[in-house]
Amino acid sequence: MQANLIVLPSRYASSFRDLCLRNPVPCPLLEVLPPGTFSSKLAHESDIRTDIPAYNIFHNGVLVTEAKGDVREEWTNDHVGFLIGCSYSFETALAASGLPPRNMREHLAVPMYTSNIPLMPAGLFHGKVVVSMRSFKEEEVERVREITRPYRRQHGEPIAWGWDGAERLGLLDKVRKGEVDFGEAIEVPEGEVPVFWACGVTPQVAVMESKLEGVVLSHHPGSMFVTDLRSDAEDMLEAIV
Amino acid sequence: MQANLIVLPSRYASSFRDLCLRNPVPCPLLEVLPPGTFSSKLAHESDIRTDIPAYNIFHNGVLVTEAKGDVREEWTNDHVGFLIGCSYSFETALAASGLPPRNMREHLAVPMYTSNIPLMPAGLFHGKVVVSMRSFKEEEVERVREITRPYRRQHGEPIAWGWDGAERLGLLDKVRKGEVDFGEAIEVPEGEVPVFWACGVTPQVAVMESKLEGVVLSHHPGSMFVTDLRSDAEDMLEAIV
Repeated sequence: MQANLIVLPSRYASSFRDLCLRNPVPCPLLEVLPPGTFSSKLAHESDIRTDIPAYNIFHNGVLVTEAKGDVREEWTNDHVGFLIGCSYSFETALAASGLPPRNMREHLAVPMYTSNIPLMPAGLFHGKVVVSMRSFKEEEVERVREITRPYRRQHGEPIAWGWDGAERLGLLDKVRKGEVDFGEAIEVPEGEVPVFWACGVTPQVAVMESKLEGVVLSHHPGSMFVTDLRSDAEDMLEAIV
Repeated sequence: MQANLIVLPSRYASSFRDLCLRNPVPCPLLEVLPPGTFSSKLAHESDIRTDIPAYNIFHNGVLVTEAKGDVREEWTNDHVGFLIGCSYSFETALAASGLPPRNMREHLAVPMYTSNIPLMPAGLFHGKVVVSMRSFKEEEVERVREITRPYRRQHGEPIAWGWDGAERLGLLDKVRKGEVDFGEAIEVPEGEVPVFWACGVTPQVAVMESKLEGVVLSHHPGSMFVTDLRSDAEDMLEAIV
């Protein structure tokens, strides 16, 4: 099981926790690391300041350092860390069922879009649901829904599918043209339809748009925290954190 | 603390539970009563088949009996009961802070609208977020947000506010004209702005639209299950259920 990291000054922690709890599909909260805590319960003897391959650092909402190898200097005792579920986990399940998404087969970042669905706001945090898109044959969609449904803390089942689903998210034109907001452009091939999942980029965008003061840290996109848990061991989460 | 009731044939229980967990703001799950269980942990010696003042009964998606006094005959051992948080609780808190909503002062049902925000779908369940509307002076909105924020299992802080908020929910015309989808029409007076909360009617509408087979039961709108908990005792929920 992989996880996204967001680290905020403590004064924003309560609102950000509310944002996650009010929007568990795009922002599935796995663990909160209180001030002064640098070891995640999801990985034995972990140090979350150094165990991620690359970090991004923001000052007053501006990205100032990209893909730094550790954040021991930047992470103060006033910071609170949030680990958030990631959709890489269910891609493994799709592949195991003979339905590997094209981005996975071709080792591309998944195409991502900002949808028109507003987040449930929480304090100063607001934003829109960012979605990832993978395409499948129409007759495969129900199976894809079933396979990804159990991954409740890793975005779970899709939130929309088909061309009518793309339209309801306000994304018909962009997806038809093979454009993207984040990640890599992958066109939907003839005979397939787009399927959309809520995406862990959502809380990052919400944090960036809220123009927080002070130092905010995150993993570098694509360089997630790798836990000790198997991706299908969500039940373990309840027992651990 | 008051609660909404929805009772479904057991084959729909897993999907409906997912719907609640994926949409905790409109559908805050307080307790699940497994098959054969008729006593809620939220009220001492309760019998949920008789303790609500009035029930509605649906056959194959059609309302066949309204405001019946008990459902001992209809509730079989194949039924699963869901208790869902209710916004009556935070209205008490608003009144205690000197901000009683007009519907409360005038003993009217709160005006409710079907917004354009899609629910995160779960299995066969999908729908739109239904919102309740209460109006306040613009300068009161931040305090209203703060007062209702802690009621996390009772819809919590508003999801939109102001006339621009009404527009984002696709409700500007209806609210301006004092029209409603459910409840009673209350116009927003000059000098006030509408404030919108996610509403417990949301899961009922989703259930009705999903055209379930068999017998579905619910409380009669306005006749909720009254628990033993104080409305501000949400922390107790974790310990009890």
